[in-house]
Amino acid sequence: MKAGAGARMQELMTELFPLCRSITGEGVRETLRKVSERIPLDIHEVPSGTSVLDWTVPEEWNIRDAYIATRGGERVVDFRQSNLHVVSYSEPVQTVMPLAELRAHLHALPEHPDWVPYRTSYYSRTWGFCLAQRELDALADADYEVSIDSTLEAGSLTYGECVLPGESEDEVLLTTHVCHPSLANDNVSGIALLTELAAALAGASRRLTYRLLFIPGTIGSITWLARNEERLEKIVAGLVVACVGDPAPLSYKRSRHGDALIDRVAAHVISRSAGARVLDFVPWGWDERQFNSPGFDLPVGCLSRSREGEYEQYHSSADDLDVVQPEQLEDALCAVVEILDVLETDRRYVNLSPKGEPQLGKRGLYPSTGGGAAQDEQLAMLWVLNQSDGANSLLDIAERSGISFVTLRAAADRLRDAGLLAEADPS
Amino acid sequence: MKAGAGARMQELMTELFPLCRSITGEGVRETLRKVSERIPLDIHEVPSGTSVLDWTVPEEWNIRDAYIATRGGERVVDFRQSNLHVVSYSEPVQTVMPLAELRAHLHALPEHPDWVPYRTSYYSRTWGFCLAQRELDALADADYEVSIDSTLEAGSLTYGECVLPGESEDEVLLTTHVCHPSLANDNVSGIALLTELAAALAGASRRLTYRLLFIPGTIGSITWLARNEERLEKIVAGLVVACVGDPAPLSYKRSRHGDALIDRVAAHVISRSAGARVLDFVPWGWDERQFNSPGFDLPVGCLSRSREGEYEQYHSSADDLDVVQPEQLEDALCAVVEILDVLETDRRYVNLSPKGEPQLGKRGLYPSTGGGAAQDEQLAMLWVLNQSDGANSLLDIAERSGISFVTLRAAADRLRDAGLLAEADPS
Amino acid sequence: MKAGAGARMQELMTELFPLCRSITGEGVRETLRKVSERIPLDIHEVPSGTSVLDWTVPEEWNIRDAYIATRGGERVVDFRQSNLHVVSYSEPVQTVMPLAELRAHLHALPEHPDWVPYRTSYYSRTWGFCLAQRELDALADADYEVSIDSTLEAGSLTYGECVLPGESEDEVLLTTHVCHPSLANDNVSGIALLTELAAALAGASRRLTYRLLFIPGTIGSITWLARNEERLEKIVAGLVVACVGDPAPLSYKRSRHGDALIDRVAAHVISRSAGARVLDFVPWGWDERQFNSPGFDLPVGCLSRSREGEYEQYHSSADDLDVVQPEQLEDALCAVVEILDVLETDRRYVNLSPKGEPQLGKRGLYPSTGGGAAQDEQLAMLWVLNQSDGANSLLDIAERSGISFVTLRAAADRLRDAGLLAEADPS
Repeated sequence: MKAGAGARMQELMTELFPLCRSITGEGVRETLRKVSERIPLDIHEVPSGTSVLDWTVPEEWNIRDAYIATRGGERVVDFRQSNLHVVSYSEPVQTVMPLAELRAHLHALPEHPDWVPYRTSYYSRTWGFCLAQRELDALADADYEVSIDSTLEAGSLTYGECVLPGESEDEVLLTTHVCHPSLANDNVSGIALLTELAAALAGASRRLTYRLLFIPGTIGSITWLARNEERLEKIVAGLVVACVGDPAPLSYKRSRHGDALIDRVAAHVISRSAGARVLDFVPWGWDERQFNSPGFDLPVGCLSRSREGEYEQYHSSADDLDVVQPEQLEDALCAVVEILDVLETDRRYVNLSPKGEPQLGKRGLYPSTGGGAAQDEQLAMLWVLNQSDGANSLLDIAERSGISFVTLRAAADRLRDAGLLAEADPS
Repeated sequence: MKAGAGARMQELMTELFPLCRSITGEGVRETLRKVSERIPLDIHEVPSGTSVLDWTVPEEWNIRDAYIATRGGERVVDFRQSNLHVVSYSEPVQTVMPLAELRAHLHALPEHPDWVPYRTSYYSRTWGFCLAQRELDALADADYEVSIDSTLEAGSLTYGECVLPGESEDEVLLTTHVCHPSLANDNVSGIALLTELAAALAGASRRLTYRLLFIPGTIGSITWLARNEERLEKIVAGLVVACVGDPAPLSYKRSRHGDALIDRVAAHVISRSAGARVLDFVPWGWDERQFNSPGFDLPVGCLSRSREGEYEQYHSSADDLDVVQPEQLEDALCAVVEILDVLETDRRYVNLSPKGEPQLGKRGLYPSTGGGAAQDEQLAMLWVLNQSDGANSLLDIAERSGISFVTLRAAADRLRDAGLLAEADPS
Repeated sequence: MKAGAGARMQELMTELFPLCRSITGEGVRETLRKVSERIPLDIHEVPSGTSVLDWTVPEEWNIRDAYIATRGGERVVDFRQSNLHVVSYSEPVQTVMPLAELRAHLHALPEHPDWVPYRTSYYSRTWGFCLAQRELDALADADYEVSIDSTLEAGSLTYGECVLPGESEDEVLLTTHVCHPSLANDNVSGIALLTELAAALAGASRRLTYRLLFIPGTIGSITWLARNEERLEKIVAGLVVACVGDPAPLSYKRSRHGDALIDRVAAHVISRSAGARVLDFVPWGWDERQFNSPGFDLPVGCLSRSREGEYEQYHSSADDLDVVQPEQLEDALCAVVEILDVLETDRRYVNLSPKGEPQLGKRGLYPSTGGGAAQDEQLAMLWVLNQSDGANSLLDIAERSGISFVTLRAAADRLRDAGLLAEADPS
């Protein structure tokens, strides 16, 4: 990983955090523009009304201002202070109404009286405001001016795609959702991680092709899937990346299949990280829901720290930049890099001296004095030799031995250089 | 379940408890007569001497009276006080003998000095009395008059069969043993449960055919098996029901196969009940031993609370009506009903919109405001959609998701009504 | 097992302990001579320089004397006190050198300052001394006379082979390493156990053929494998035996395959021994490394108490005769005998009365009074009858039931004698 990754990701997060993203509109466009300053990114615009699988691309939503004000003109709820104050996709409104009537449009979190919740109404025309319970309780029983200066008009859904071709057409799909407004961990963190990752991959040699998607949640993955059905058979592994900056240990959520290559690789890699969890697939969460629908059934898992709903600040104004720690972001990036590294380099070898152990000492691969304890690299060589019958890959050996893939690959390299190991016929 | 089931089962138990049942004879006949007042029951009589598999139907045993009396005529052990006092199938005896000689015919429980044990000698001609250890210790060293007024004569073995045909010839076999005298949990409880169940099933629509057997233990199931070999291939699931009223949590004992449909269904249903146990098959217990013999190998498990020998009062006079609690009986009946309900309604569906999630919101199946936590019924719908690829049944989905079959079936019904789900080709 | 086995093994250990064994030379020869006084043993001599798989039989090493002495002639390290003082396979040396220069040739154990370590340098020409850290620390900074009166010359590698033919050509391979000098548990204990075992097997009737190897570690098994490739297909099971006398509970290490017959049998047998461990295969340890190399992949596990490196005294002068307890040796021998007994007698039976349980009572196999608890031998008979459908062996039944193989075999014998069981067609 390139030095300074943590700082670069934090800088991008700081730039992206204030933007008012939604599933369409200028907030997403501006977000992708900032990402495209760092990596080669194709920006796709899909017109409102386009049929995508069972869905239709909705009208584009944009918002300039919104508030609730007293008749004296004092803004008691103000979009300019936080874009969370407006229910995403609220239709325009300009009226005066008494508090009793207004209440049906107000959302708060009684259990966290100082936090503003995040709410949406993408597919059902309505409007609403979110505010802290304490603010709600303080509202006098009076008439209020209610204003949402938004537009819902024919436009387009925007998503970004970064394709980094490799020697092989086999693809690794990496996606993150770009539809949340000022929520830091969910999911400015994921956008920052995928941007830094793309920059690193762009500068590396690649056996596999990488496709990174910056997409609005649900409708974005559905739109991309609808437009790319013929490509799906190239996907050999995939990861949805989200909520990667909070203090929790890493979690990997398996694909629907449960034992796909990505599942095994991710479990191996993160199992070496303290407290890490490997979770079974459930049809809830982020865009893995779409990739793992039965008609596609793609080998796509999900990497995060906390899962949706697991951290207290989730979907509220408290999910701010303080929740995300640069070391946590960098550690998550390292895990993704290591997962991709295993996907790139896992292979099956054949022991060329399979009868008995070959004499490693005469090849300089074994300590000359015997009687002491085994060293890790000796053990790694012995495992590779013992298991390399053409059927077992380095990952298989890592799973059986409990030795890290990296250590085994180094051992395999030494053995291959000594003429004791050859790559197995790939067929 | 029909209201008042607990009270009705308790009432039947109270009627049946005093009867002196054995593997043949009037006690069984009277028991089946009382059952037949409540449900349609065919009473079968199989003549003594009939060959049944490796066995022979024994002579019929009946008893009018039995006692041990002092030479002064005082009954110190009296059949009229408890039918447990006589070893079941005791041959007639009328003699006087000293205590020293009599002792070889007396059975007691030193570890429970106030309880009378239950003992049998069906296939070896002898006679004996059972009494409390305290009574035994109090017997003076004198001569005693010993009288057993029983008959062992050509007659028949009696069992009851209640067949409730369904749309399909596929059968569910439900059996309980009717051979124990005044022991409440083992097994007047099982007779009461199966009677109430038959009454409920008789009034319900049925896809499957139900066959309920009220049979003497071992020789009864062997006799039925011998006479019904050609029917056995219709049996798709079965349950032996016994000891269902004591305070212990439910137990399900798997079939010999271990992973038959009935094993999966019963495990799913009772796992939702506090403290419930799922036990591996062992060739000991009740009539499941016969159904699971290697020559039949039927998918028949066993539902009970305590297993044989697990409760202190087992096979003694302390297994009286106080051991059985009506709520426990009713809870066991509910479990059986729920197991049968799963057998009736489990099926495989196909998601008709398998690419991506279908848009549930536009069909009124999803809350219009987003951002909050998932609700149970939403999750159930998503699970059914995600897994319904034609290979997974609702039970498969219940096992994988941890969601109850009932909740998933309701979700499947809503999805089917919305045109999103169709029953999979049964082939 | 023959009476007095523990005492005989202890006696042999006491004779063998002082000999200076290595992978070649007179120490091994003398060891095998003593073994051959007790069992029929073929002694093989394989000339130095012979190619064996990827290895070459090394020159033969012999040693008469060795010491480090002060210029005043006082021996401060003396081979005559312990053969561990010389690094095995040290080349001859006769010189004077200052302590500073000598230090590179000295090995000690700082964490055990009173113990002399065991070190070897078989395949890299050098010389060295092992001594206690306390002795090393006490050496004055002076010149020392260094003398190793050894020879490294063309000769041969020696191993012993005891073949005990059975009715079948199917072979069980049993091996132990004979290359360690005065180390008691590792591995005079293994030599003593295999000697006693061979004596016992020689006097028993045998269905299987037994081949017992007394071989130098690594190069010995490689040499035997190179010379016996055509025999390997006869091997149906094998055990490497080593470190069998220390106080630790028994351990069985599985073969590379992991679920070979020997793995199942050994796990069943030792699981009945308190604290016993069954360990997965790792390509480290003793000669199981060679037998389990991918080109041979033989069903050979390893029985020991402590594994290599697990006991504190391992590979040091503290591994003396006090470490080995005769009861532990005898207990390990019993385990091996029981494992071989299962290999000899395991078979599949067919229940000849498979429909329902056969009536055991009329054959005298069941208690005549019913109602009490099941007895172990009844349960064993019922398990054998229930599972003997031709597919399950007695070992399968032992694994499923948790009943010992010995008890089940006795039950099967009774059932076979009663005409209820026949051996299944071996095909």
